[in-house]
Amino acid sequence: MSRILIKDTEILTKQGTQTYNLVINGDRIAYIGKDLPDNIFFEAIIDGKDLIAVPGMVNAHTHAAMTLLRSYADDMLLMDWLQNKIWPAEANLTDDDVYWGTQLAIVEMLKSGTTTFADMYFFMDKVAEAVAETGIRASLARGMIGVAPDAEEKLAESVSLYKNWHGQANGRIRVMFGPHAPYTCSPDYLQKIIREAGNLGAEIHMHLSETEQEVADCLQAYKKTPIALMDSLGLFELGTLAAHCVHVTPSDIVIMKNKKVRVSHNPQSNLKLASGIAPVPEMLSEGIIVGLGTDGTSSNNNLDMLEEARLAAMLHKNNKKDPCVVTACQALDMATRKGALALGFQDVGEIKVGFKADIVLYNMNKPYWNPRHDRTSLFIYAANSADADTVIVNGKILMEHGSLKTIDEERVYAEANRCGLRLTK
Amino acid sequence: MSRILIKDTEILTKQGTQTYNLVINGDRIAYIGKDLPDNIFFEAIIDGKDLIAVPGMVNAHTHAAMTLLRSYADDMLLMDWLQNKIWPAEANLTDDDVYWGTQLAIVEMLKSGTTTFADMYFFMDKVAEAVAETGIRASLARGMIGVAPDAEEKLAESVSLYKNWHGQANGRIRVMFGPHAPYTCSPDYLQKIIREAGNLGAEIHMHLSETEQEVADCLQAYKKTPIALMDSLGLFELGTLAAHCVHVTPSDIVIMKNKKVRVSHNPQSNLKLASGIAPVPEMLSEGIIVGLGTDGTSSNNNLDMLEEARLAAMLHKNNKKDPCVVTACQALDMATRKGALALGFQDVGEIKVGFKADIVLYNMNKPYWNPRHDRTSLFIYAANSADADTVIVNGKILMEHGSLKTIDEERVYAEANRCGLRLTK
Repeated sequence: MSRILIKDTEILTKQGTQTYNLVINGDRIAYIGKDLPDNIFFEAIIDGKDLIAVPGMVNAHTHAAMTLLRSYADDMLLMDWLQNKIWPAEANLTDDDVYWGTQLAIVEMLKSGTTTFADMYFFMDKVAEAVAETGIRASLARGMIGVAPDAEEKLAESVSLYKNWHGQANGRIRVMFGPHAPYTCSPDYLQKIIREAGNLGAEIHMHLSETEQEVADCLQAYKKTPIALMDSLGLFELGTLAAHCVHVTPSDIVIMKNKKVRVSHNPQSNLKLASGIAPVPEMLSEGIIVGLGTDGTSSNNNLDMLEEARLAAMLHKNNKKDPCVVTACQALDMATRKGALALGFQDVGEIKVGFKADIVLYNMNKPYWNPRHDRTSLFIYAANSADADTVIVNGKILMEHGSLKTIDEERVYAEANRCGLRLTK
Repeated sequence: MSRILIKDTEILTKQGTQTYNLVINGDRIAYIGKDLPDNIFFEAIIDGKDLIAVPGMVNAHTHAAMTLLRSYADDMLLMDWLQNKIWPAEANLTDDDVYWGTQLAIVEMLKSGTTTFADMYFFMDKVAEAVAETGIRASLARGMIGVAPDAEEKLAESVSLYKNWHGQANGRIRVMFGPHAPYTCSPDYLQKIIREAGNLGAEIHMHLSETEQEVADCLQAYKKTPIALMDSLGLFELGTLAAHCVHVTPSDIVIMKNKKVRVSHNPQSNLKLASGIAPVPEMLSEGIIVGLGTDGTSSNNNLDMLEEARLAAMLHKNNKKDPCVVTACQALDMATRKGALALGFQDVGEIKVGFKADIVLYNMNKPYWNPRHDRTSLFIYAANSADADTVIVNGKILMEHGSLKTIDEERVYAEANRCGLRLTK
């Protein structure tokens, strides 16, 4: 088993600012303390001076390969944007595109301190390959649109994705079933998905209650909100990661609480697409697990989770006219521990003995890290994700002093430009 | 006169993506074109490959030395925060503190591509010294609170600040008069300020209509909104930079348009303090000059103008339920050209022959700069201000490949921590 020592590093905890030594053994954190363990052979020793260790952030909802469409279409009305830009470009996607688009997303995530992501897209075998090769952690779902002619094939792909990849890559990959949304999947199709997922023990990743229109249409068609409809179909019994949940009602929140629905809150995407502001303080106060996500880079347009955490902390203060809601501590918790729980990773997202070693060391030798009154505030409200210096996932060093160890960055940029520019010609 | 050549650089313009050579002569941009001028001696030649030239951003409202209080107090109710944390700490401020706090702010601004700022604070001679020494551009105002016992002294300080510093440092420094707000300056006191400023030809920098409470109190006391009250006093005849303007009415906007009031919109501060969302699309469509500001780092908590531009573009889309408002181009324009105009700098904020050479070169060799469908979208929605590589202000290179030429960064961090931790003991 590989052993790594991080010497004299600060660790971002609620307790404050002491300097510790941290030992990683295999894929887990083995020791945190003032003493320096001796008589142990370390494969790597990292000098933690001027660095602060933060749990790797968890991007709880994205479509990674949409990096290829970054900056292709912005500032447009939703249906114009989808029908005339995004969907035609996506119709040209090949598995090679998805592979390189996902690689680009992984470069961006690792370099900004994100160590886990939840993905829903097409050609998911290629996404799984990219995850396995690069060393990042992910929950993967094959997006399923029931209204499409290949709905059954997609369900079959979900089954094989689960069988081939769930628990693989040393446990770094989980697989969920990904029905796209209530407006693209009929109750009949959802019943099939629930049956297949239930047979395998797979959980669900689904867009729910993203826009007012979606909720209004669902109420008209089924006399139920999207949340109530999914509940009536039994979807939530499987375990569900629900993306967006912008337009959920108080009674939806009761259902979500009772059925332990986990949420990905995607504040930047919701603003950019003018979808609304999710009732996150209400969900948090009911004890619902809320993580944070970027959504795809067509509606964001980056994968910077620190931006999401900062925006979440600020947006809800104004929305509730209360500067005390969504504190820096809560935002950090959503971006890390709660995000991991939302994806179904139980021992990820905290720097704690026994937890998986997913750790990011940020360089504090920067103007906005001074003066140092409160590290959590500095991280959430002032810091820059570009200062991720060293990134460890599952006990492996994937980036050291800014340099990626498992990815040829220059090649990824070249291939992503080649794919992205071809797609949109 | 010094001459600088930037070779083969992309320039961020609405027209797109050609590669140019750019020549700076003295403090101005002298040439932009495909040809390489010959027979000219250049003091410096910068290789622009993989870089993109963007006008230096303009922070249209801040209190620079509040960097010292960064992370000292967050997530609190406004009056609790002010009365129990911010004001007691500020009461301990010395001129030395303000000098080092401002130096820290300037380090942060230059390193993130901001080349001009509008400041309102105390000990402004020290701020002017820091601006003169470091080479940044600024509009400075001594904050004046009429309800304080030293109100007259402050006015006298404003006069001498103007006489000593307006137009100094090769034109990099402008001075405005800074009455704090309608709720801290009586009409009588404002009349005195207007008289003194009018005698000198000085313009005004003032907080206006930041909170609902301010407007309600003003209506009760004077039967006028803050904007209408200032108009009735004749303040706007001087030329005014109004910070915040969150709670302005349609008839306020008519006054602002007619009196050419310029605005600093500070979206992140407004969210963090739960002040509200300013009607920016309405102001823009009336042709009002709206720049962007961070406000002080107690309510932000950094000086990252790219964050403000991105948030401005996104926040108003959702607030207006229209993803077409505040486009990437408009956000860029507010962060640069319109900010400069808001501060009274007429030939700053564009990369254009004849304009002052305030130019930032950003490194595009980053994941979120790929693929390159649209540079303006990439800058506003995806890029990171930490990628500022080289910064030129008034024709002088202040940062080259990330290294500051006029500031001892390590010393600034040490001094700022010393001051910041003493202030809050």
